[in-house]
Amino acid sequence: MFTLDQVSAHSTATDCWVIIDNNVYDVTDFLKEHPGGASIILKYAGKDATQAYAPIHPPDALEKNLPASKHLGPLTADAVQSVAEAQKSRKKTKDETRVEQALAQRPPLSQILSVADMEAVARKVLSHKAEAYYSSASDDNISMVENARAFSRFFFHPRVMRPVSKCDPSTTILGFKSAIPVFVSGAALAKLGHPLGEVNIARGAGKTSIIQMVSSNASMSPEEIIGAALPSQPLFFQLYKHVNDEIAAQRVRNIERLGYKAIFLTVDAVIPGNREKDIRSPWVVEALETGSPKVYVEGEKEAADAGLGTAGALIANDDRDMTWEKTIPWLRSLTKLPIVIKGIQCVQDAVLAAEAGVEGILLSNHGGRQLEYSLPPIEILYRLRKQRPDVFKKLEVYIDGGVQRGTDVLKALCLGATAVGIGRQFLYAQSAYGEAGVVKIVQILEAEIVRGMRGLGATRVEELVPEMIERVDWAKL
Amino acid sequence: MFTLDQVSAHSTATDCWVIIDNNVYDVTDFLKEHPGGASIILKYAGKDATQAYAPIHPPDALEKNLPASKHLGPLTADAVQSVAEAQKSRKKTKDETRVEQALAQRPPLSQILSVADMEAVARKVLSHKAEAYYSSASDDNISMVENARAFSRFFFHPRVMRPVSKCDPSTTILGFKSAIPVFVSGAALAKLGHPLGEVNIARGAGKTSIIQMVSSNASMSPEEIIGAALPSQPLFFQLYKHVNDEIAAQRVRNIERLGYKAIFLTVDAVIPGNREKDIRSPWVVEALETGSPKVYVEGEKEAADAGLGTAGALIANDDRDMTWEKTIPWLRSLTKLPIVIKGIQCVQDAVLAAEAGVEGILLSNHGGRQLEYSLPPIEILYRLRKQRPDVFKKLEVYIDGGVQRGTDVLKALCLGATAVGIGRQFLYAQSAYGEAGVVKIVQILEAEIVRGMRGLGATRVEELVPEMIERVDWAKL
Amino acid sequence: MFTLDQVSAHSTATDCWVIIDNNVYDVTDFLKEHPGGASIILKYAGKDATQAYAPIHPPDALEKNLPASKHLGPLTADAVQSVAEAQKSRKKTKDETRVEQALAQRPPLSQILSVADMEAVARKVLSHKAEAYYSSASDDNISMVENARAFSRFFFHPRVMRPVSKCDPSTTILGFKSAIPVFVSGAALAKLGHPLGEVNIARGAGKTSIIQMVSSNASMSPEEIIGAALPSQPLFFQLYKHVNDEIAAQRVRNIERLGYKAIFLTVDAVIPGNREKDIRSPWVVEALETGSPKVYVEGEKEAADAGLGTAGALIANDDRDMTWEKTIPWLRSLTKLPIVIKGIQCVQDAVLAAEAGVEGILLSNHGGRQLEYSLPPIEILYRLRKQRPDVFKKLEVYIDGGVQRGTDVLKALCLGATAVGIGRQFLYAQSAYGEAGVVKIVQILEAEIVRGMRGLGATRVEELVPEMIERVDWAKL
Amino acid sequence: MFTLDQVSAHSTATDCWVIIDNNVYDVTDFLKEHPGGASIILKYAGKDATQAYAPIHPPDALEKNLPASKHLGPLTADAVQSVAEAQKSRKKTKDETRVEQALAQRPPLSQILSVADMEAVARKVLSHKAEAYYSSASDDNISMVENARAFSRFFFHPRVMRPVSKCDPSTTILGFKSAIPVFVSGAALAKLGHPLGEVNIARGAGKTSIIQMVSSNASMSPEEIIGAALPSQPLFFQLYKHVNDEIAAQRVRNIERLGYKAIFLTVDAVIPGNREKDIRSPWVVEALETGSPKVYVEGEKEAADAGLGTAGALIANDDRDMTWEKTIPWLRSLTKLPIVIKGIQCVQDAVLAAEAGVEGILLSNHGGRQLEYSLPPIEILYRLRKQRPDVFKKLEVYIDGGVQRGTDVLKALCLGATAVGIGRQFLYAQSAYGEAGVVKIVQILEAEIVRGMRGLGATRVEELVPEMIERVDWAKL
Repeated sequence: MFTLDQVSAHSTATDCWVIIDNNVYDVTDFLKEHPGGASIILKYAGKDATQAYAPIHPPDALEKNLPASKHLGPLTADAVQSVAEAQKSRKKTKDETRVEQALAQRPPLSQILSVADMEAVARKVLSHKAEAYYSSASDDNISMVENARAFSRFFFHPRVMRPVSKCDPSTTILGFKSAIPVFVSGAALAKLGHPLGEVNIARGAGKTSIIQMVSSNASMSPEEIIGAALPSQPLFFQLYKHVNDEIAAQRVRNIERLGYKAIFLTVDAVIPGNREKDIRSPWVVEALETGSPKVYVEGEKEAADAGLGTAGALIANDDRDMTWEKTIPWLRSLTKLPIVIKGIQCVQDAVLAAEAGVEGILLSNHGGRQLEYSLPPIEILYRLRKQRPDVFKKLEVYIDGGVQRGTDVLKALCLGATAVGIGRQFLYAQSAYGEAGVVKIVQILEAEIVRGMRGLGATRVEELVPEMIERVDWAKL
Repeated sequence: MFTLDQVSAHSTATDCWVIIDNNVYDVTDFLKEHPGGASIILKYAGKDATQAYAPIHPPDALEKNLPASKHLGPLTADAVQSVAEAQKSRKKTKDETRVEQALAQRPPLSQILSVADMEAVARKVLSHKAEAYYSSASDDNISMVENARAFSRFFFHPRVMRPVSKCDPSTTILGFKSAIPVFVSGAALAKLGHPLGEVNIARGAGKTSIIQMVSSNASMSPEEIIGAALPSQPLFFQLYKHVNDEIAAQRVRNIERLGYKAIFLTVDAVIPGNREKDIRSPWVVEALETGSPKVYVEGEKEAADAGLGTAGALIANDDRDMTWEKTIPWLRSLTKLPIVIKGIQCVQDAVLAAEAGVEGILLSNHGGRQLEYSLPPIEILYRLRKQRPDVFKKLEVYIDGGVQRGTDVLKALCLGATAVGIGRQFLYAQSAYGEAGVVKIVQILEAEIVRGMRGLGATRVEELVPEMIERVDWAKL
Repeated sequence: MFTLDQVSAHSTATDCWVIIDNNVYDVTDFLKEHPGGASIILKYAGKDATQAYAPIHPPDALEKNLPASKHLGPLTADAVQSVAEAQKSRKKTKDETRVEQALAQRPPLSQILSVADMEAVARKVLSHKAEAYYSSASDDNISMVENARAFSRFFFHPRVMRPVSKCDPSTTILGFKSAIPVFVSGAALAKLGHPLGEVNIARGAGKTSIIQMVSSNASMSPEEIIGAALPSQPLFFQLYKHVNDEIAAQRVRNIERLGYKAIFLTVDAVIPGNREKDIRSPWVVEALETGSPKVYVEGEKEAADAGLGTAGALIANDDRDMTWEKTIPWLRSLTKLPIVIKGIQCVQDAVLAAEAGVEGILLSNHGGRQLEYSLPPIEILYRLRKQRPDVFKKLEVYIDGGVQRGTDVLKALCLGATAVGIGRQFLYAQSAYGEAGVVKIVQILEAEIVRGMRGLGATRVEELVPEMIERVDWAKL
Repeated sequence: MFTLDQVSAHSTATDCWVIIDNNVYDVTDFLKEHPGGASIILKYAGKDATQAYAPIHPPDALEKNLPASKHLGPLTADAVQSVAEAQKSRKKTKDETRVEQALAQRPPLSQILSVADMEAVARKVLSHKAEAYYSSASDDNISMVENARAFSRFFFHPRVMRPVSKCDPSTTILGFKSAIPVFVSGAALAKLGHPLGEVNIARGAGKTSIIQMVSSNASMSPEEIIGAALPSQPLFFQLYKHVNDEIAAQRVRNIERLGYKAIFLTVDAVIPGNREKDIRSPWVVEALETGSPKVYVEGEKEAADAGLGTAGALIANDDRDMTWEKTIPWLRSLTKLPIVIKGIQCVQDAVLAAEAGVEGILLSNHGGRQLEYSLPPIEILYRLRKQRPDVFKKLEVYIDGGVQRGTDVLKALCLGATAVGIGRQFLYAQSAYGEAGVVKIVQILEAEIVRGMRGLGATRVEELVPEMIERVDWAKL
């Protein structure tokens, strides 16, 4: 049992304690290992760090990363009360005040007519830091913008005089039933946007019978998330492979044990992308709160470089040396789950994946957050369809990136995709309205998909064929 | 004879009377059948509903849809007076006041130089609801915008040194004479924009010798409309086939009996399009009038979904299972009128229509109001000309969607179209200036067509040939 | 000798006198023949019309169009003085005041660096009416805008390591020497922009050794204009053929007699273009001066239609039935001057012109003022070069429309043009600074052409070849 | 020893003394030779000219260009003090005050995340004159804008599942090691932006192990610049060949003697480009300082023409008649240094260069500052790769123009370039933060290049191949 005075005596880089959820931890040795850097921890040296820690760490992070000997023990009752009071009497920041007002002015959910409507609400109710992390992309946002814009180059050849009163948009993904050909693509840190984070998505997916892919970088543990799912509800797991094979293997075995139904191995994010909006976020917040941006003082020692923002920290320990020859057999030896490669970005690698015998590929450039000027996934799909239609017979093909409308989903299916992943938009939906937001955008997409299928003269997803689509050169969007 | 008190005693979902044009109706049983939903009727339960009812229902709607036993009878003279006074003393809404001012500031008709000028006036004088219904299109308005923009990719090869002092822009459509190769394409609910609604168009078309296609969803009855036409004036009928074959057959027989000259069977709108502006319209009006938009209350029971707006209600009972094999022979068996398929959206279906032996096809994506990313009709026409020029010999080909200028008409004719339909712009014209507006835009189009023909070196529509047109890739519009 | 009272007694449509330059004319019979319509004359019935008449009529217009018997005679001395005083004491209009201020704020000519700079000044110092007439184009200005934008699709293949210290941009046009491969293309009504009108251009062209093409619709007579030229200075004549062959023949003989060196027969303007800005101009001016636009009064008799603006009046009596078979031999029989067809707009007609044996063709769509969606001339030139390179050996090819920079001129020459015409920009230049403005833009163009030739590695115009140019698809302008 | 009165007695065009750095010079005879024109010198006739002279002349300019007899001698001590006091008490101009404030508000260097961030700071802290000189380009900036925009048409085919934990972005250029495949392309007048000018760049290049190409038009002497470099640091020299072969030969021999490692012979700037912003700069400054722009006075004698701005003066004495046959052998005879042709702008000339046996070519249109509508260098590189891949085996190929991001560099390398030059951005960087700015943007580029290589699955520059890139047609930027 520690008093606040006792804790505050350990507030230096060589002797650093912090309080999290009323427990005291000695993080001195951990400072240099922290993926997000030492300086962010040192801001809270000798103090309560709970508010900064909670939204971006799963609850088992301390257990996994800090030896039991550094878990020093709980605060005294007086200290607990002091911490709570300090938190309660804390003056709200300008950003927090703005968010509160925005939350109070949300339109009723019945007035959300499209995925874009949902994003517009979310952009207003997110904290600056969360909005920057969710919305940022590489360099100048070219790939992110083109991911969406690319869909606008595909027009339909709708067929008329076909019976469409009955229309079934459901499909299967890796053998698992899905109400619509859409799944939740892995996206990190849902708690940044809403306290219930990934659990909102798991519950919303369960209610609407779609499948959630859970990220290794989720802000909640795989246990918590699958614990929120329905008994029969399938979930997939997006694996960021740890550089240490044994740690990685434990994660895979744990995932299979927990009941996840497939492994999506992430290969498009072995290094951090350059998300400048995310990197710039703390400076913007500081300038906003204090009213005065930092200025350059000639000759003054520059602080360490800007670092890589939230994204960089998350993958600091990932394996950058995966290969077809080594990694796929290793993974296959660990698990019976189907394996999907997430992040294929050209036709050649799609062919290699088929040769490697995996069950699926997700054409993805990580939402435009990794290599700038990676082709939009719908364009890669189009090339794959034209150049190597045989690949579609060997594995399932999915895409993610830029999907906003039911027509986008239908375009991918016409070109041969089995289903389409959506990531950011689920983060926005749960940030704006929690679980109800997740349910809402699935309902919107389902209505749009059914309407589009009927407009095309198709009543089952198998009837969506390449002849129904044409690539034009006049996109304006 | 009913007093207002008597009527107001029936104001619940299980006992619902309404007053329309000083007559009392029991609509209790009808509530669940009403294509526009029960809630809009319940707003007027026990009260006068005339103002809301009149602009969007033809006068025979009550007769057709409500059994005679539910026509309870007239109001007393006192009640009639009370209703009239209440209506007169009613405070004008902000939107009504805005419309009145806009009407008073219309420029003189002689200063309307183009179809776009006319639309600009109409957009100002329409109620918010009418403007939203007329101008809305699917999803993000892509197909609507591209319909018009597509024309800007076609440039002319004008021929000089040809005698053009005499120039005749007239043509025939299905054998009926038309002063210019333009007809009024079916468009619903003209009374939303002007009390005389479709009659304005019928009269204007008569004065300028063009042909009106009357929609099944007109806000006036086919009888009223043809009644306003000149004795010799041909009119066509746009058929939305009722799901019940017998009801549909009665409508066809009635149309033929009334003297309509052709049936345009609508196949591009078997389900409602997603017109978000139209759906959003009541919320916008409410926020405008009250000054306070609705906000989200966490946990509160959400109202039923937004529904499908005006468009959805109109086609709720239409046949979604038409086929070439079944529907065309059925229709042929009912009538001797020429049959045109309205809503062909790809080359393959144009070929099927020719094989089905119909007299014409109208390449149309319903003004961009149905399936988003349907190709612009001028683009389908271009593909049909290149891929299957034989089709033009088997039937007449028309297009509608996006036509604004005489040059647009000429481009379609150069590619082989017989005539071009215009819908929205006639709604705008009659909304802005009534019948005179309709006459005006025909005059404008005729002048533009004649000017364009002379500029091309053509003096009859037959001289407009594919060699006079070129598709370029630099459209900027 | 007439008093003002005597004149003012004749102020009706059936008895109409006007004063012009202190002489009295009976225009009663002429009212119905006036190409600009009767109403504009009737505004001045019984009054002095000089201010409205002078800027848009050549001085010989009265002589040519009104029988001698209607030239009633001069005003009395008192009347002359009254007219002058009335003119002097007349309150300036808002537009005149604006123009005066703009003239006083012109930048020094040395700060005009480009043709675009010159246009920017002219746009400010022109009266609203003049600006509208000069800048207006057909329908939505598509062809005018594309004329200029089309140049931005052509990029150079510059050659290096070639001696360019000496560089000669001169050429010959129809055998006449020109300092640069640029001529003044015919453009009407220069006096609208500056009192010295076309004489400014003639003198500026003389000083800079380029060739002026004088329009039939000039606001000064052919005699006045050639009278202002240097003795050795060649001028061409742009012929609008009168519908009456004899009147047309007299004009041609007169032109040859006066010493003009070539006939450019205009074939792209046999009917008036739809220049809405020009047509709208009087309404805009009226609203500007009175502060209150006209509004629509329901049921009121509409005034006659808007007419065709300044442009329509100018060509009301032109021949709309010219043909290759009839018109070229007729013209050839009248004159020994070289004949150029102005207004060729497609490859086929360029071939017909070559077969007709004319000396040159001017690829032109009349500056985008006639048929909207006529191809940009540089695009027609490009097609002609690719499809029929033989035509360049049979006659000289010129283009006009959209030329703003020396690089534009060089692009045309690389594709095989002999020279390039510029019209509007000379009107702007003389409007902004009179003769000095004309000289200035020739100097600017010469500097740009020489700089461009050297940049391309060419020292004579013959060295500009198709290999130096490439058409790309990424124009952004 | 001269007093100020003595100097001021010589203040006319026929007797003109000036003071520079407290020494007196008789420049009467030099007036007509001054590349920047006489008028700028005459502004300081009889006065101190140091402030205007220093930023745009290397220190040895007086020595080289003015005979010793015209070096009249130093000022008296009193005069020196007077000059210093006058300078000190001089009121700051509005532009100087603006610059001072901008410098004080620069963000800390750690917040500069991209080359574009750096430019944004520089644009604010530069004097108007410097900003105009650095940022200006030809005519309408088309080539400058397209240089950058062209990169956005190239998308990547990234390869996954390749080991990238180790990644080496270094290369060699003409045999000299460079930390990244980027060099400093020659750019003139660095002192306009920062007092240490080109020395900032030399030191920054030394610290980051990249190679600087020093311009003949540098504002510091080649001796000064190489003097600031590290002993082992290679520098290249950008030669503007003087029209006088002997003067040119002396410069070449001097350069070799000083230790420069290669000659980049400039062939894309034998005449001055039309940089209107630069030409306009003095007028803008004058209007800014006085608050009243010059206006046009009719009839007043116009001042001499605008001239060609800073750029024109710099190359007034350059050789405009270089040829492959004459100039390359001449240069080869003078030096053993490798020769690179800077300014190849089409495939044909790249082939001629290979045939001429030079060691390299720099595809460049001088940053869009010379011939407008010269193709973007990345487009020329793309054509060279497709049409003549053999050229890449005969010499090294570089490009410059429009490079802003590491991905731009990688695109050029995929297409076969050895390295990429950057000019303007180094001027901006040293203007904004001096040497530290130069170091910073190299660090930024290195991080971007490494990140991009890893994203592409490449660990050495040799692994960047044409298969990794695709040219698309949908660039939006």
